[in-house]
Amino acid sequence: MLILKHLPISSFNENIAYVHKNCIYFDAKDIKTLAKVEIYGSSRRVFAFLQVTEDERIVRPSELALNNEAFNNINLPVGAKVTVSQVLSLPSTVSIKRKMLGNILSYGEYELIFHDIISRRYSNMEIAAFLVASGSFMSPPEVLSMTEAMVGEKRISWGKDIVVDSHSIGGVPGNKVDLIVMAITAAYGLPMAKTSSRSLTSATGVADVMSVLCNVDLDETTFKKLVRDNNVAVANFESLGIAEASNIMGAVERNIGVTQFEHIAAAILSLKIEAGITHLVFDIPVGLYSRVRNAGEALHLKKLIEYVGDMMSIDVDVVITDGSEPIGAGVGAVLEARDVMKVLLNKDDAPDDLREKALFIAGRVLEFDPKLRGGQGRRVAEEILNSGRALEMMNKIIHSQGKSSQPQLGHLTKDIISTISGTVKNIDNERINAIAVLAGANKYKGAGLDLFKKIGDYVEEGDVLYKVHSINSTDFAFVNSAVEDYDGYAVVSDDFDGDYEEDEDTDNDFEEEDE
Amino acid sequence: MLILKHLPISSFNENIAYVHKNCIYFDAKDIKTLAKVEIYGSSRRVFAFLQVTEDERIVRPSELALNNEAFNNINLPVGAKVTVSQVLSLPSTVSIKRKMLGNILSYGEYELIFHDIISRRYSNMEIAAFLVASGSFMSPPEVLSMTEAMVGEKRISWGKDIVVDSHSIGGVPGNKVDLIVMAITAAYGLPMAKTSSRSLTSATGVADVMSVLCNVDLDETTFKKLVRDNNVAVANFESLGIAEASNIMGAVERNIGVTQFEHIAAAILSLKIEAGITHLVFDIPVGLYSRVRNAGEALHLKKLIEYVGDMMSIDVDVVITDGSEPIGAGVGAVLEARDVMKVLLNKDDAPDDLREKALFIAGRVLEFDPKLRGGQGRRVAEEILNSGRALEMMNKIIHSQGKSSQPQLGHLTKDIISTISGTVKNIDNERINAIAVLAGANKYKGAGLDLFKKIGDYVEEGDVLYKVHSINSTDFAFVNSAVEDYDGYAVVSDDFDGDYEEDEDTDNDFEEEDE
Repeated sequence: MLILKHLPISSFNENIAYVHKNCIYFDAKDIKTLAKVEIYGSSRRVFAFLQVTEDERIVRPSELALNNEAFNNINLPVGAKVTVSQVLSLPSTVSIKRKMLGNILSYGEYELIFHDIISRRYSNMEIAAFLVASGSFMSPPEVLSMTEAMVGEKRISWGKDIVVDSHSIGGVPGNKVDLIVMAITAAYGLPMAKTSSRSLTSATGVADVMSVLCNVDLDETTFKKLVRDNNVAVANFESLGIAEASNIMGAVERNIGVTQFEHIAAAILSLKIEAGITHLVFDIPVGLYSRVRNAGEALHLKKLIEYVGDMMSIDVDVVITDGSEPIGAGVGAVLEARDVMKVLLNKDDAPDDLREKALFIAGRVLEFDPKLRGGQGRRVAEEILNSGRALEMMNKIIHSQGKSSQPQLGHLTKDIISTISGTVKNIDNERINAIAVLAGANKYKGAGLDLFKKIGDYVEEGDVLYKVHSINSTDFAFVNSAVEDYDGYAVVSDDFDGDYEEDEDTDNDFEEEDE
Repeated sequence: MLILKHLPISSFNENIAYVHKNCIYFDAKDIKTLAKVEIYGSSRRVFAFLQVTEDERIVRPSELALNNEAFNNINLPVGAKVTVSQVLSLPSTVSIKRKMLGNILSYGEYELIFHDIISRRYSNMEIAAFLVASGSFMSPPEVLSMTEAMVGEKRISWGKDIVVDSHSIGGVPGNKVDLIVMAITAAYGLPMAKTSSRSLTSATGVADVMSVLCNVDLDETTFKKLVRDNNVAVANFESLGIAEASNIMGAVERNIGVTQFEHIAAAILSLKIEAGITHLVFDIPVGLYSRVRNAGEALHLKKLIEYVGDMMSIDVDVVITDGSEPIGAGVGAVLEARDVMKVLLNKDDAPDDLREKALFIAGRVLEFDPKLRGGQGRRVAEEILNSGRALEMMNKIIHSQGKSSQPQLGHLTKDIISTISGTVKNIDNERINAIAVLAGANKYKGAGLDLFKKIGDYVEEGDVLYKVHSINSTDFAFVNSAVEDYDGYAVVSDDFDGDYEEDEDTDNDFEEEDE
């Protein structure tokens, strides 16, 4: 038996156990490679990866130290007696091998894989192997199995026939229509339980933007009370304690830089089911520089989501929208919140595209109401927005959840200038997102980009295409160097001869990725 | 700038940097997920994964601590000033994404990937993603590119026209013919630079078995001197400081439990090229329970290896051999060394299959000698073995390299008994290997299995099929429980009615994996 110690290091989703080289119980000196161990001591067995030290101040030969993740898992006090044994391989890893060979896995196999993932029995590299293996091909029943397996033990129950939400598959910077849709829908009177995430691969998540306006870290009790009282609330997934599987999976996906539509679909649907949503508008923006590149991909994904939704008894209305360029002017939490409020305030300078898309999505959400005549959703949504009732509802939400301290826009700024006169032909969403991340948008609410020109706009040489805002000088230095390499805008000169170099490059990239 | 500290923890191939939550330089409190950073301070930039602590005894806000791997990489003293920046993504990860989508990667892409892997810029999960993505399909030119990219900067040069070796792709327990082949070949007079590895996925590696007899941890200078003096030496790859890429790759492959022929072929060929081998016999054992399952797979692999060998100017003779059951009686270093010595001593109880296979492989190696008439290799090999010249050579090798302290066979033993009378129909190589590993064979030289019965042998009820040897009582408890589940032997009763359950299971497994 070894004595349990806690080494307060966060390793982000990976359980680590530290033993001394001369551990009295475990043959640590024979370890030459990564080894997975199982730690007993309580009713809950914990799996961890072993790391070895020669320093008794870190862990003594008679001790076993656990990092934060593993220590929180084992649920034993420091000083408890534990035993350790090496794990050769988990039964569910056979399924990963089968998936690599192109087999179709059963529901039971997905259930076992996710059970092991949620129990932190997989290392990040095993999760990576699973994601890549399942990324090359998944049949629709497999996506269904994965969705079912990702739904955790905790499901929020509302006791209502209809609880609505809207969600986008992402890939379009600045696309925060969901907050306007929320205000309109709640003002109309449909119960809206808005769950949202912090930024993942993108510069901002819906939760980041909303947190500029008010607190979004609601626990389940508060979330339920607010929805009961006000017909609406907006919460961050993490604060609700749901979405464990997709959090773990997402962390690995971000690190290996790979996202598969099938995984995203399963993650979003499982989250919404955990949140107790009965009716969901699922937005698929399509564009050359978006996550979904063409109509064929979008249609394939639409049918997949419809199938999984139907089988899981969640009413999903999948809409395909224009994802050819960023929506609104701001990319970054403070700037996006500004755009959202401009639309709700019916300001003259509110971004038209953001307003139009919000009305379109809100209209589809409203039509979940059986009493609303088909085709009337958008008109009703527009009435609610124009009348100021949506703004009133947003203010009520902000007040109920607790107004935030209103973060400021970054004061380190740089104007990105067009070097020629001509027309904006393309805006590269991926690049705009990457530049916003470099500016610090996924760390600081006040960092981001303010876009002054959109596709089709005429620009003079010297006009500002967009302005960069940073909080931190290191970020600012990075972003300055990045925009010099490629600013994401393609401006075509008036005397364009048809042989446009940047555009050709882009087309090639696209063709290669689409092979 | 932060002050460099060394936290003496081994994480096995992964660079880790530890910062305090309130780090004065890096925004550690904003980190919510795995983050890769780049550390500057010397001419050598080091990449590491960030972990965060709240304990100032681990690292202070003004410090940056590195684990053993990262500290050895950065080549700076404790107390040096370093700067840290976050890495968004490596350019070579674009290639991994391309591979996932089914593209064929160029040599330049493989070169960049392996440059980044060897420089420890990849996390283990990124390596896993690469291995799985490239596992589903690789064109022969891609395997060539991967082999070339895996050849490190260090290549041993012999200044000879011919330096031979033999190597097996593995999957057959007890297959230590290489040591007998080495003794015969060296006795004949062909220069043999035998490089070998410690156990990887298998219970033992050639280096483990040889280390029962003598020291195999030779540095390059000693290795070269011995080959010059004696015409032969046997060294562990790691001690020679070669095989860096395949070590890193192998550690991840073992952990995700996935091995691809293309990766193994590239790893073995790149190692042999680094070792300066000019002529190589490459053994592919084929069997239902072996790594290569059927003639079709074997032929495909043979042509692939021939192609890569030809393009890399290494003369490879690929032989396909019987891999239907373990070779020899022992599985485990001490037991396998015993078998090898019995063959060299021409003992009556020397395992026939081991002797026969060694003569076959040795014959093919000897025929690399232009002076030897075609078809005479095996006869010459047998003469050398029978005459005792191979034994004499083995004793010379042992003496030159330094005789070992001769580890003892494990004294914790268990006899595995046949429960019926009948004939041994099958021996499951994978299971026998797993049981040997559970017995402790990959940790203790004296642990392993001693097989008394082989395929075709008649057994009475109560006969011993094999004996388990363990050193450690924990291992012994594990192996006892494992053999009760499935001991790896299929004994068919004399009144067998054709409806043999275990066998059917196995066939199904095989068909599924081969889809």
